[in-house]
Amino acid sequence: MTAAKPYALSVKAVVCDVQGRCLLLRRSTSSKANAGKWEFPGGKLDPGERVDQALEREVAEETGLTVTVRRVVGAAESELAERKIAYLILEATCGTNEVILSEEHDRFLWVAPDSLPNIDLSPQFRPFAMIYAQRLLQRE
Amino acid sequence: MTAAKPYALSVKAVVCDVQGRCLLLRRSTSSKANAGKWEFPGGKLDPGERVDQALEREVAEETGLTVTVRRVVGAAESELAERKIAYLILEATCGTNEVILSEEHDRFLWVAPDSLPNIDLSPQFRPFAMIYAQRLLQRE
Repeated sequence: MTAAKPYALSVKAVVCDVQGRCLLLRRSTSSKANAGKWEFPGGKLDPGERVDQALEREVAEETGLTVTVRRVVGAAESELAERKIAYLILEATCGTNEVILSEEHDRFLWVAPDSLPNIDLSPQFRPFAMIYAQRLLQRE
Repeated sequence: MTAAKPYALSVKAVVCDVQGRCLLLRRSTSSKANAGKWEFPGGKLDPGERVDQALEREVAEETGLTVTVRRVVGAAESELAERKIAYLILEATCGTNEVILSEEHDRFLWVAPDSLPNIDLSPQFRPFAMIYAQRLLQRE
């Protein structure tokens, strides 16, 4: 049995606009991993930072949007050479939808939640996208 | 619109034994919330502690078991008067299954994953239990 890899924690946001569409960002062609794939905004927590604070800061840095965190909606995981990343995914709402990207991403897209499984997402978010899309459909 | 409540982070473990059964703990009758309901072992992170370190420590404190964290399997949320708790749920394995409870719980139970939806769980873990049971069945 090999030793378990340490986990880093990342928070990701399903940012929803007033029409209920959610925001995806495309990773720049210069990205080390998953270049050209779509993902949710978010990132790692700074030391001592709360989950909701980190999410609001990361979304602002990557999209220029001011968001309000609403609820926990899922989790995901990815594996790197020396560690794993655990993703906690939260739904957030934004009043406006004027996106200003950072250099980390080169495109953005607002999609209906039930279209999420059709998007070329980074692989670690595909199982979550399926579950999220299904749960939303069940509410209707 | 009311101000959003701050989130605290908690890690919970689906501890699996060699037969694939998973461990549930019953909250003591003296518990402030959800007394008598079943839950997964786990708890809050200490300052600076990693997700996997916190999980291994909390499981050891609550069950006496030494576990190895395997993968992220889900998330959940609960709401208190002044804050919310975000739960990141990870699967872990243990070599032995001799459980020694702390005062926080008064019973333990090993159950097959597909029986999880039938257990009287604390309400915040019921949606996760449904999804977890379904995903395991799909693997068979």
